[in-house]
Amino acid sequence: MAAQELPHVVIVGAGFGGMESAKRLAHTPVRITLIDRQNYHLFQPLLYQVAIAGLVPSQIAYPVRTIFRNQKNLTFQMGEVTRIDFDAHYVKMDGSVIAYDYLILAVGGQTNFFGLQSVERDAFQLKNIESAIATRNHLLEMFERASREADADKRRALLTFAVVGAGPTGVETAGALAELITHVLAKDYPQMDLKEVRVLLLEAGPHVMPSYPDGLRKATTGLLEKKHVDVMLNAKLMDYNGGRITLSDGKQIASHTLIWTAGVRAAELADQLGIQQAASSRVVTEATLQLPNHPEVFVIGDAAYFVNGNGQPLPMLATVAQQQAKAVVKNIRKMLMGEQPESFHYKDPGLLATIGRNAAVARIWGLSFSGFIAWAIWVVLHIYRLIGFRNRLVVLINWAWDYFFYESQVRLITKE
Amino acid sequence: MAAQELPHVVIVGAGFGGMESAKRLAHTPVRITLIDRQNYHLFQPLLYQVAIAGLVPSQIAYPVRTIFRNQKNLTFQMGEVTRIDFDAHYVKMDGSVIAYDYLILAVGGQTNFFGLQSVERDAFQLKNIESAIATRNHLLEMFERASREADADKRRALLTFAVVGAGPTGVETAGALAELITHVLAKDYPQMDLKEVRVLLLEAGPHVMPSYPDGLRKATTGLLEKKHVDVMLNAKLMDYNGGRITLSDGKQIASHTLIWTAGVRAAELADQLGIQQAASSRVVTEATLQLPNHPEVFVIGDAAYFVNGNGQPLPMLATVAQQQAKAVVKNIRKMLMGEQPESFHYKDPGLLATIGRNAAVARIWGLSFSGFIAWAIWVVLHIYRLIGFRNRLVVLINWAWDYFFYESQVRLITKE
Repeated sequence: MAAQELPHVVIVGAGFGGMESAKRLAHTPVRITLIDRQNYHLFQPLLYQVAIAGLVPSQIAYPVRTIFRNQKNLTFQMGEVTRIDFDAHYVKMDGSVIAYDYLILAVGGQTNFFGLQSVERDAFQLKNIESAIATRNHLLEMFERASREADADKRRALLTFAVVGAGPTGVETAGALAELITHVLAKDYPQMDLKEVRVLLLEAGPHVMPSYPDGLRKATTGLLEKKHVDVMLNAKLMDYNGGRITLSDGKQIASHTLIWTAGVRAAELADQLGIQQAASSRVVTEATLQLPNHPEVFVIGDAAYFVNGNGQPLPMLATVAQQQAKAVVKNIRKMLMGEQPESFHYKDPGLLATIGRNAAVARIWGLSFSGFIAWAIWVVLHIYRLIGFRNRLVVLINWAWDYFFYESQVRLITKE
Repeated sequence: MAAQELPHVVIVGAGFGGMESAKRLAHTPVRITLIDRQNYHLFQPLLYQVAIAGLVPSQIAYPVRTIFRNQKNLTFQMGEVTRIDFDAHYVKMDGSVIAYDYLILAVGGQTNFFGLQSVERDAFQLKNIESAIATRNHLLEMFERASREADADKRRALLTFAVVGAGPTGVETAGALAELITHVLAKDYPQMDLKEVRVLLLEAGPHVMPSYPDGLRKATTGLLEKKHVDVMLNAKLMDYNGGRITLSDGKQIASHTLIWTAGVRAAELADQLGIQQAASSRVVTEATLQLPNHPEVFVIGDAAYFVNGNGQPLPMLATVAQQQAKAVVKNIRKMLMGEQPESFHYKDPGLLATIGRNAAVARIWGLSFSGFIAWAIWVVLHIYRLIGFRNRLVVLINWAWDYFFYESQVRLITKE
């Protein structure tokens, strides 16, 4: 069979789900077109490290073309998918039309502000490299401005950093930010009074880490307190104007920095497809991950609404996307051979979140860990999963250096 | 004497001249305020490496506050100097006023477009981190666009990269860009025909490397040809519209990329001071580097117009700025002790420029080198001079990797 006649699999999105699908299709008799609006795969779990000046973008991103250099059945196209015609089986991307035999939608998620427009306008978020760099620039600028501010109240407002949402991303960001301040910035700003600096973690619900078991929640709270993060529970955000946070109970906090990590929803593209969406705008799929009425279309990862055995939708995690990618590739192979696709079943590999140097919480193999052991597991796992050997090496050197010298190298304010 | 009563030295600019002045004043009984609009010192000689995706910003920039963490007589202020009152002895910075007893103006240079407005609008330049990143994004985007362009003429225009100015920066940029293309991008775009890619080096004058001796000019031309850089001499740019280059002889070249390295002038601040300027808008100084009629003000580096023994103004080089900084610090010490300041004399340390992997030209200790030996000298010297031990280490790993695997890690298109 000539290459042009092979079935064409189009994958939209080069996140964890899209990448895993593409790699697993390497030895299947198909042509693959992988589309992403960026030319790189982003290791999203470490994006908060870019925001707190711990890592630089090139350490957590890797060009897609380089990753697939040796996979001959794959073509990469950088561009934005604007429309999909599910009946005519084609994808529209920046003016060009790409027909498919099979389509894998792995378009990922984006920040969910739940309609809070003032927050959307003035808050920082950890969505992509650009927003992480904007956050880093802003954090460092607050210190620069505070260093020449004579008014104590204004200075405290500049030095109050609020992280909203006490899920893993919020906890990791708040913990790492507190460490950056006490161990690194304190040295760079010797005249500054560290007592004026506050890192707040605001959570609308009654617990940190809502999806974690109770023991690990307690451990998380303890570790955050040790790092001087001010955890505020039942603190529901109502308004933010760039200088003042208003909570639903009327309480106000003067702060020029609000990092919003309290919600994720399916990427906007999901809204434009004219298909059924559920909570967080995610696309409802069949048990086989197929789109209802379109058996040649699969939806995976953050954008897919897939109800687990316990009646809950699967969380938006890399491991979910990767397991789904594996299942979809298996189903495409079956369909190519005229067989029926199988239902997807998720295997929970555990939970893992870091709260800064020496501190993490984990539940793996049915066991709960916290403190240094959990942190060591986290470091090894994350560095191992980082794409690209040199990236791993450079990140390892950075982190070893940081670990021994409490140092962080990338405190650059780089702006247009 | 209490610290507040010590003479106040204000240094404007954290480039090579400003940094050297600040360091050399560490043990002089003065208070120092160092001002820069960025919070980092930039290792400008390697900026072109960021533009061609060879290095990332954090490898050539280092936070000023971290560099001076242990120098107790120095305060850093990030901000833009907008005015200087030479009679009242103060500097205005973003609204605040900073009085000085001694002032060192080390404000550096900026790109000189010689009034070519169309070039200024549409050309790329290597001025700061932001412009280097913009250049990198653009270069990589041209390859992405070319990869999906069916029209051969349009594709060739996308793949024609013009560097203007055959001084060291232009030669280094063109050579490194040619290597990026033949060794790295060729692997990422296997469908692309490398014969459609052209790197042009346009020079208005009759020679490459005008300030170098004839033997090294010949060596440079030979090395550029070996790397398939198309050198065009006596090619004077007249107009550029983002898609078409027009030369003064009427010749036109279709190209979407023009990197302008053909001129540097003193930073704009020099125009706003109401003081005498010479060629390239540089500030005319006394033989002692003092500003005429203002003995407490010194001007050094790219912004200073200082005529050498041979009647020529000193070139805009880091070594000039650093030697001048040393002389100024000596003169301030003399003045503090009631002595007369001395005239500055420049010691030429030689010339050195790289033309990519294994290839450089150098004139050091009266000897001319070219090829691998010059390149090895260049690598050792530049890595040694890079501020920060970890930066050196990471750059060394990057380069060793690139050297052995013809690879480059940072081909990310990161945009707002």
